Amino acid sequence: MLNAIGVDVGGTKIAAGVVTPEGEVLKEVRHPTAHTPERVLEGIAGAIEEVRDGFEVGGVSLGVPGTVLSAENKVIFSPNLHAIEGIPLKDELGKRTGLHVTVENDASAAAWGEFRFGAGSDVGHLIFITLGTGVGGGVITNGALLRGAQGAGGELGHVTIQATGPRCGCGNHGCLEALASGTAIQRRAREVASERPDSALGELAAERKVLGEDVTELARRGDEAAISVLEEAGKWLGVGLAGFVNVFNPEVIAVGGGVSEAGDLILSPARREVHLRSRSPGRDLVRIKEATLGPASGILGAAALARHPSGEYVFG
Amino acid sequence: MLNAIGVDVGGTKIAAGVVTPEGEVLKEVRHPTAHTPERVLEGIAGAIEEVRDGFEVGGVSLGVPGTVLSAENKVIFSPNLHAIEGIPLKDELGKRTGLHVTVENDASAAAWGEFRFGAGSDVGHLIFITLGTGVGGGVITNGALLRGAQGAGGELGHVTIQATGPRCGCGNHGCLEALASGTAIQRRAREVASERPDSALGELAAERKVLGEDVTELARRGDEAAISVLEEAGKWLGVGLAGFVNVFNPEVIAVGGGVSEAGDLILSPARREVHLRSRSPGRDLVRIKEATLGPASGILGAAALARHPSGEYVFG
Repeated sequence: MLNAIGVDVGGTKIAAGVVTPEGEVLKEVRHPTAHTPERVLEGIAGAIEEVRDGFEVGGVSLGVPGTVLSAENKVIFSPNLHAIEGIPLKDELGKRTGLHVTVENDASAAAWGEFRFGAGSDVGHLIFITLGTGVGGGVITNGALLRGAQGAGGELGHVTIQATGPRCGCGNHGCLEALASGTAIQRRAREVASERPDSALGELAAERKVLGEDVTELARRGDEAAISVLEEAGKWLGVGLAGFVNVFNPEVIAVGGGVSEAGDLILSPARREVHLRSRSPGRDLVRIKEATLGPASGILGAAALARHPSGEYVFG
Repeated sequence: MLNAIGVDVGGTKIAAGVVTPEGEVLKEVRHPTAHTPERVLEGIAGAIEEVRDGFEVGGVSLGVPGTVLSAENKVIFSPNLHAIEGIPLKDELGKRTGLHVTVENDASAAAWGEFRFGAGSDVGHLIFITLGTGVGGGVITNGALLRGAQGAGGELGHVTIQATGPRCGCGNHGCLEALASGTAIQRRAREVASERPDSALGELAAERKVLGEDVTELARRGDEAAISVLEEAGKWLGVGLAGFVNVFNPEVIAVGGGVSEAGDLILSPARREVHLRSRSPGRDLVRIKEATLGPASGILGAAALARHPSGEYVFG
């Protein structure tokens, strides 16, 4: 089997890697992302050319942050990289590189990476959820990536779990993202800090802006205020995951993204909430655990979704 | 292609039909449901024998109300038909009829019926939701029925849409079922009736117990109190459906069950809420409409899920 190139297109950097069918990254490059359409294309094409050198490559897939129309291999909405919206990526990059290029949502690609090579490599039914600034996700059901009619499916961060809850970046109220993302944790940390000024969290907030990492760090050191912020986010995460357990009956839910570095500080309350809110036998089967590939899931998953011009995956 | 038998096993009646691959019901029987394990088996086997007479049949599938373990063809939880729990249906009915028998969740079977022969017959991505005493559902994504790892997936009524909401029959709080089922409508109708005793709804409630059908009937006649009850349920329905649009990116959402007889009185507020809460391009694509097969969806869907011993669907 041939190798494939996976490109993780982010709002701040582009990472491209040559990946073997076994999930080994043979070569990887990383560059800052430019923000005009032409320079985005140049940057992606350049990264592809740079890594392919000397390797036999069957195809390329991009994981992009935003809403992808699968049939057209186009990004129609990308809040952190507007320059990529509407570009005919497949054709333009195909012309520049001579390779067959397809386009995927970045969280769906990362889900596929965890399914092929990571936390879900031993199962057929996987939910992947990434908790960062926003909340993204991907669903593998019966060994297939759930895309939906247009490729816009799998938006697990944008299900309503508290209809009267806080406004989400997407315009809706009470999305999972509005309650369990890094952004939501930061917002709650500010509120809790002002309610509990004598806590370590409160003292830090008096000095400087509190980041998500700070909350995790303070919680690890035992600060009750910081612990309560993560517990609350973990509970909300569990409310969302419980619904996914009932709807998808997955074997594994893998949680990735920056917030997942809090580990059991956020996953334990999530597991308790899932147990309370979801049904047997799904709730007894599912294992909720940290994703294992880290930032590499983007490149690995995109590569594993690369296709031959026939439509077959390069990795079979 | 051979015919198949679909059996719709309900808490009050069992309906069995011989169905052609084109979705024509050649013969149908209907009997009350017995409530001991042996008599449930007798009832189902008897109905199968009664309809098969004279027809070439490739296989049988049962749609049962409850949680099905697909691999074992067993029902592990059925709140309205406990007698069926744990019975080795495939083996026992196979022995009695000589036919190959498989077991499906009733709402999943009905979803498959709408997909093959009804509201979703022209699409590949369908959500079916049935609003009755409870809320059931089924998901077809990329032409396949979503079952999950154990066959317990597709429980669309049991996603949390208002975490602090009313208690659901499943033990959770704020499930879609707890807010948009016929039971929820009846409960809200009682509350609204006591707040607005001069409304037609209030007057009826003073006389006798108000049923779901009454609310629809009064709303059709223009009673504002009854209309508001359906609008509220429709909004909650829309909150849930909006999440399904973002997660599944379906082409059609077909709404069935007794409550759906309220038509646009419940679907119009649901559509408005979906438009507010879900994202492009999925929200622009999806059509939310009434299911078209009515009660026949159970038999038709189960028949279309009947298999040969090889595992292939009888209807291909």
